[in-house]
Amino acid sequence: MEDLTLLTDMYQLMMASAYFKAGLHEKEAVFHLFFRKRPFHGGFAIAAGLESVVQFLEGFKYHPSDLEYLAGLNDQEGNPYFDDEFLKWLETFQFACDVDAMEEGTPVFPHEPLVRVKGPLAQAQLMESPLLNLINFPTLIATKAARIRLAAEDDQVLEFGLRRAQGIDGALTASRSAYIGGCDATSNVLAGKRFGIPVKGTHAHSWVMVFEDEEEAFKTYAKAQPGSTVFLVDTYDTIEGVKKAIEVGDWLRKEGRKFLGVRLDSGDLAYLSIEARRLMDEKGFHDAKIVASNELDETIIADLKRQGAQITVWGVGTNLVTSANQPALDGVYKLSALKEGDGYRDTLKLSEQLGKLSNPGILQVRRFEKGGQYLADMIWDEKAFDESVSAKIVDPLDPTQEREIPSDWVGKDLLKPIFKSGKKVYDLPDLKTIKARTELELKKLHSGTKRFMNPHKYVVGMESGFLTRKLDLVRKLRRKSRS
Amino acid sequence: MEDLTLLTDMYQLMMASAYFKAGLHEKEAVFHLFFRKRPFHGGFAIAAGLESVVQFLEGFKYHPSDLEYLAGLNDQEGNPYFDDEFLKWLETFQFACDVDAMEEGTPVFPHEPLVRVKGPLAQAQLMESPLLNLINFPTLIATKAARIRLAAEDDQVLEFGLRRAQGIDGALTASRSAYIGGCDATSNVLAGKRFGIPVKGTHAHSWVMVFEDEEEAFKTYAKAQPGSTVFLVDTYDTIEGVKKAIEVGDWLRKEGRKFLGVRLDSGDLAYLSIEARRLMDEKGFHDAKIVASNELDETIIADLKRQGAQITVWGVGTNLVTSANQPALDGVYKLSALKEGDGYRDTLKLSEQLGKLSNPGILQVRRFEKGGQYLADMIWDEKAFDESVSAKIVDPLDPTQEREIPSDWVGKDLLKPIFKSGKKVYDLPDLKTIKARTELELKKLHSGTKRFMNPHKYVVGMESGFLTRKLDLVRKLRRKSRS
Repeated sequence: MEDLTLLTDMYQLMMASAYFKAGLHEKEAVFHLFFRKRPFHGGFAIAAGLESVVQFLEGFKYHPSDLEYLAGLNDQEGNPYFDDEFLKWLETFQFACDVDAMEEGTPVFPHEPLVRVKGPLAQAQLMESPLLNLINFPTLIATKAARIRLAAEDDQVLEFGLRRAQGIDGALTASRSAYIGGCDATSNVLAGKRFGIPVKGTHAHSWVMVFEDEEEAFKTYAKAQPGSTVFLVDTYDTIEGVKKAIEVGDWLRKEGRKFLGVRLDSGDLAYLSIEARRLMDEKGFHDAKIVASNELDETIIADLKRQGAQITVWGVGTNLVTSANQPALDGVYKLSALKEGDGYRDTLKLSEQLGKLSNPGILQVRRFEKGGQYLADMIWDEKAFDESVSAKIVDPLDPTQEREIPSDWVGKDLLKPIFKSGKKVYDLPDLKTIKARTELELKKLHSGTKRFMNPHKYVVGMESGFLTRKLDLVRKLRRKSRS
Repeated sequence: MEDLTLLTDMYQLMMASAYFKAGLHEKEAVFHLFFRKRPFHGGFAIAAGLESVVQFLEGFKYHPSDLEYLAGLNDQEGNPYFDDEFLKWLETFQFACDVDAMEEGTPVFPHEPLVRVKGPLAQAQLMESPLLNLINFPTLIATKAARIRLAAEDDQVLEFGLRRAQGIDGALTASRSAYIGGCDATSNVLAGKRFGIPVKGTHAHSWVMVFEDEEEAFKTYAKAQPGSTVFLVDTYDTIEGVKKAIEVGDWLRKEGRKFLGVRLDSGDLAYLSIEARRLMDEKGFHDAKIVASNELDETIIADLKRQGAQITVWGVGTNLVTSANQPALDGVYKLSALKEGDGYRDTLKLSEQLGKLSNPGILQVRRFEKGGQYLADMIWDEKAFDESVSAKIVDPLDPTQEREIPSDWVGKDLLKPIFKSGKKVYDLPDLKTIKARTELELKKLHSGTKRFMNPHKYVVGMESGFLTRKLDLVRKLRRKSRS
């Protein structure tokens, strides 16, 4: 990864410098990265982005040109923001944090930490902005892709978003995350090269326009690319285009070759795919595929299927890679505890809304399953939970809702150690392994949690002792802030 | 720029290879990049992204690892998609296109080419996807930022979007484009270093939470960062936070130092800013600023101003850098002419909608002004317009609407030569020059074109002879496609 150490917000450096001057920079702090709202009003999200977080942290080092740049930043009076002593510290600090995180491909729910950072306050603070950038977007796209995969059922799904993605890396990261979430291939060749994702593509309208005649265009293409006889039929008139593709299909059959299908890129995809299917079937091309694209997303795909569209391969671009109906995940990174003497002081950010309070503590997420189905998650504080007592979880938004975890539910903790005192202790899985994990994990969620309209709310509770301490802290801080 | 040559869609390479095999790869072709819909239903867009297009094209070269990757791509039968001969051509081709483009910071309207590429068909085809990726997003963000600048009037606008941007480069490119469009500074330190954009930032909630007491937090910050006494006041209770900030302001005044202001990041920004202003004014802090952030965009800023909000600095994040209400510009890249013998054959893509037909020809855009105001644009075909006759423009969606360009209107052509036969002939301006151009150019647009609700539609017409030829071609292609 290129030098990204300065990929942070200015205020992180301002605070780091102020912590340094106040002698607080080495104080041990705990931060959690989590989101608050269910993306797309859906039932789940899919964690992604950890690989680039690991790469970022492995290269987390201020280079001479970074320090030189920072040394030149001045306030309005012309005084430098950062003095030599602090810059020296930036130059020499050794990354020393513990980082625990959910593995990529894990289903995750609001308020559950995706990443936990424990370590020297100034270091943990500086990581905030890059971690959010590197987790928010991939998680959003993996989630969107998982929804599209659910809508497409067993059909192929191709990600086509490069041209309208938000920047180079908006495209590359989207291709990788879409593959994790459930796409089968991408059109983005660089994503194929970098990440080993299968790449797909045939031809565009321009190919057809180069020739005086559409049939000649298809035939010339079939001659030049024997393994890729899917013809784009909507340059001039779609149904006429299908007929011409079929004529070339006839010719291919006579040559002993295979006509793979047609691609529709505009118009009424339900009507056109049904007509194309009928025309191709009439000529015995029952195996020929119908690829469709044009502003698709999970809602439109599900709707086209309900209408009986005969599409077998879905090309999804802009709406997937920009996550058009919700272009950002609302992930945040909040301080939750500070070491004081032998123990920790819990911290939280108040809000007028109960759902926007941050969580104090050193958190872990335990996911319980029985009979191959996930049943509930428990957010708990590692420094205060007595493992020997049976777990009771409470709904943080309605503390009257509580339930005991039955003893036959099997729990596993989701935050896995990634760095210990700054040393990597995690082997990054390859991309196919991550993709397979997503698929397997989604099977363990109840179908109601995966539906698009009013999904069943998967149970995420707080361990009851933890919630009690949190609410006590909230009351104390409210009193204090008014004193 | 890193090696981005493979940042393209697979079908571009499939077509390039097929052109090569059909002996068409050196045929001279003309493509135009344009968008169809006014972003945000607004009156204008601001062109951006040319700098990275130039950088991309300067490095447009297939490296050994690219060729090795392509050589390993196989179809379903296990046969390679690309043969040695084609890969050899990829390895050795010299970029030879003419590229003309609108300069960054230029107002642009639907159907006007932002980039025109003229050169060997296979090369021009391969550039499609990267050019779209590198122009669509920056143009979208520069436009969004220009709207936010208009809403904020003479206030400062800071771009804060890193944490929720779509990837690393979604953040960096957004910072650069937002600065072009009208933002004054960014929080993104790497964008500051790379592009020379001013960077800004003070402290976050975590700083306050590190201390047992909010006032102590502000005071310690003021001691550590003398030039940056803007305090974030909403960690616990906003109004109480303002009062504590003012107390620290009193202390600063006694020390002979300056209290710069407060920052609001949640709650009712109209009410809170008016209260904060009143409280600060009561204590004589008339110069102290009120910085506000929290899901802002041009509509909310305009609305807060109408409500009398006392905000002087606007921090805009997610809604700007992801262009949340329209996360993609619908830019396309269409073949418009092919050299045949001594002349050119015009090409276009049909559509059932008149507005979705592409334009044939070798296009240029002439912008007419009088008295410092832009009055109309004319899209014209360089290979067929007789400059000696007076220009007449026609509305392509309503050919009965035509007007003669008065002889006292001064026209200038907007597409400037960037590459000639593959050699760069354009000096990239620095970012401040581009930003200044945006500001100046926007002043030349009528205020009605810049309003948010039902903006006045700036006149963009087609040169009348050109439109006649285009419509003839459409009729011919419709007849032909049905034969």
